[in-house]
Amino acid sequence: MAGGLRRGRRLVAAGRIPAGWGAGGSSPLKELEGITFLLANSPPGGNGVDDQERWYAAACAALEVGPRRLRALKERFGSWRAVWTAGPGAWAETGAAPAAVESWRARYRPDAPQRIREACRRHGVTVLVPGDAAFPVGLEDLKSPPVVLYARGNPALLQGRLVTVVGTRRATPYGRRTAGRIAAAVARAGGVVVSGLAMGIDSCAHQGALEAGGATVAVLAGGVERSIPRCNRALYEEIVDRGLVVSEYPPGTVPERGRFHARNRLMAALAAVTVVVEAPLGSGALITAERALELDRRVMAVPGTIEAETFQGCLSLLREGAACVIDPVDVAVEAGLQAAPGGAGTGGGEARSLTGLESVVYAVLDVDRPVSVETIVRRSGLPPARAVIALTALELRGLCVRQGGSAWRVQAGITAPTSRRV
Amino acid sequence: MAGGLRRGRRLVAAGRIPAGWGAGGSSPLKELEGITFLLANSPPGGNGVDDQERWYAAACAALEVGPRRLRALKERFGSWRAVWTAGPGAWAETGAAPAAVESWRARYRPDAPQRIREACRRHGVTVLVPGDAAFPVGLEDLKSPPVVLYARGNPALLQGRLVTVVGTRRATPYGRRTAGRIAAAVARAGGVVVSGLAMGIDSCAHQGALEAGGATVAVLAGGVERSIPRCNRALYEEIVDRGLVVSEYPPGTVPERGRFHARNRLMAALAAVTVVVEAPLGSGALITAERALELDRRVMAVPGTIEAETFQGCLSLLREGAACVIDPVDVAVEAGLQAAPGGAGTGGGEARSLTGLESVVYAVLDVDRPVSVETIVRRSGLPPARAVIALTALELRGLCVRQGGSAWRVQAGITAPTSRRV
Repeated sequence: MAGGLRRGRRLVAAGRIPAGWGAGGSSPLKELEGITFLLANSPPGGNGVDDQERWYAAACAALEVGPRRLRALKERFGSWRAVWTAGPGAWAETGAAPAAVESWRARYRPDAPQRIREACRRHGVTVLVPGDAAFPVGLEDLKSPPVVLYARGNPALLQGRLVTVVGTRRATPYGRRTAGRIAAAVARAGGVVVSGLAMGIDSCAHQGALEAGGATVAVLAGGVERSIPRCNRALYEEIVDRGLVVSEYPPGTVPERGRFHARNRLMAALAAVTVVVEAPLGSGALITAERALELDRRVMAVPGTIEAETFQGCLSLLREGAACVIDPVDVAVEAGLQAAPGGAGTGGGEARSLTGLESVVYAVLDVDRPVSVETIVRRSGLPPARAVIALTALELRGLCVRQGGSAWRVQAGITAPTSRRV
Repeated sequence: MAGGLRRGRRLVAAGRIPAGWGAGGSSPLKELEGITFLLANSPPGGNGVDDQERWYAAACAALEVGPRRLRALKERFGSWRAVWTAGPGAWAETGAAPAAVESWRARYRPDAPQRIREACRRHGVTVLVPGDAAFPVGLEDLKSPPVVLYARGNPALLQGRLVTVVGTRRATPYGRRTAGRIAAAVARAGGVVVSGLAMGIDSCAHQGALEAGGATVAVLAGGVERSIPRCNRALYEEIVDRGLVVSEYPPGTVPERGRFHARNRLMAALAAVTVVVEAPLGSGALITAERALELDRRVMAVPGTIEAETFQGCLSLLREGAACVIDPVDVAVEAGLQAAPGGAGTGGGEARSLTGLESVVYAVLDVDRPVSVETIVRRSGLPPARAVIALTALELRGLCVRQGGSAWRVQAGITAPTSRRV
């Protein structure tokens, strides 16, 4: 319908959300030698992912062989155990370049499966492999999907409706506020906010989700056992406690440039929508957006002034056709989330009984502080009279409270759904 | 190519620029009883627009009968003179509603053609009618094109490459600066800036064009003989002197709400591109954008923060698919203007001899003040090294000068082409 609308190429996908997303299922857990990990899709002791095979997969993945080569090796040798046992000498016979084989050989430690297993146990790290119910189906869209995922926290969050919120470390107050508001709107609508735990926009996104009583997933470019950057330690701990920290690298891995790039593809693949809140040209957030685009995910960008260098990347996305965020709630809408009270998302009767008008108004309220009627009107785009009618209705239902005359906030008692634990 | 890109409807036309635009031709003038007006497309005393017919057309148009009815009357009676001479009694027989005929009858003064002619003479107002070479072809795309245009200044500007720049009266400093920068970029590239002489964005657009040595057209909702608003008197005078003030209403007409709306359709129709610089929801500038859209013109919007109420209209345009202005030069590019030294536009050898790189850098320089290399890099989107190479080349040609170490501005001597006079 919009042929020739843009000079640029297609930035916003037609709206496909991978099948199975948002299913919100839970997975059986098995406690084994102090290590919690998932054995989903399999009856206890059944034909699911084999425990040993899981650690061999982890050891193979830790070599950081190109994922295509890795999968080719598995196809050739039949199992990760066989790949590992065969070792670099046998791999060389599969046609890999000698230099590549040498670099693998240098990293090959025969006891790696056991060492990784020990490290995971020590740090309470869950290992997910394809085939586990908690392994995100969205990653299968990648040309180079990870072979394992390391996780600290609640892996079931990966089955939620994920929204990636990213941006620059050098964020302005406006960008920081907006990242927080977007994350809160997503969380309140029942979505899960994905970001990279970096300073600036990433941190504000995680915090906004947590403060709204929602859940958040931090995707790291190194081992999940410790906070990088260190100054985000408290936030990291809270995410481990109430959300999820995930990485494709084993404990002890130091984040490096190449790993940040690889991490970005995971953030893009995990979510139905990627929002770039504030990003200069050349920002890693734009790489995430680029990956999201390649994966046919929706890309949104927050506008800023043309004078703010830190928004030039966002503006360039907008020019190429990214959807423009006008209100934080737009992101939840774009992700197919139903704005619902208290971030329940999966929705109680309360949520479903809201009128459209009430939902709109409820979605623009904040949990942590009162919002003025003027702001509610602006955020909701409703005529003042209609906004006040909706506020009154919400108040009568006990879903929001009036504070200081003409300001309102979400009723505290009904917020903060606890993260589901498997 | 971008099917399904947007939820909204098509906001940016595929790029059609009406045939004949930017032709830049001039028109023969005839001095008659102290009134300057155009008798284009006709040899002196030939078959062109008849002088008397011109004033009868003006008198008929001044009744503000709906333009379709007006044209039907002319078709019925054969000429404006015949329409006028027949009078309201005869018009009633054409099937017009009695109430409408009564309202026309109330405004009908048999001596109107002579009175309007006198008023135009007194105020130095040119009257253009369809058929005159200076009558803008773009207006023919309107469902209700004006029957006459009143003009003070240089009517040949209507044959230039016109860009409409509009926005709110309650503009922020950022919006005002940006309006000025956009207008300057358009003017410097040889375009003509169209706006509505209102306070705020409109004024800054006119001023920006004039300060860059370019031309500007103010479209008024009342008579062209005086400045409305009055506080813009000095700007009005400068536009009359160096640009053009135009209206479809005869001298003495007071701007009223309905006329502002009608004026907006003229601004939209005149230009290939309409840029909304800063506009809240409900702004008249959005009406201009809406009209531009209906006319298959390009619509651009300047982004602002989602927290600025005065940018909500722009953001809503962006969401619906308007092109995002990232740099003032974008507007000139969108209008098909070639960025060229000193706003010459029609281009001397100097302009044509610039490389693409030099053109880009030259276009982002300011005439009035030095611009830092950082800003040049940001505005041009070029790598710093390439920008400096281009600056050096421009300096060698004497087209720009370095000031204070690492800032540059356009060489003063080669700016400010004088407006072409017919």
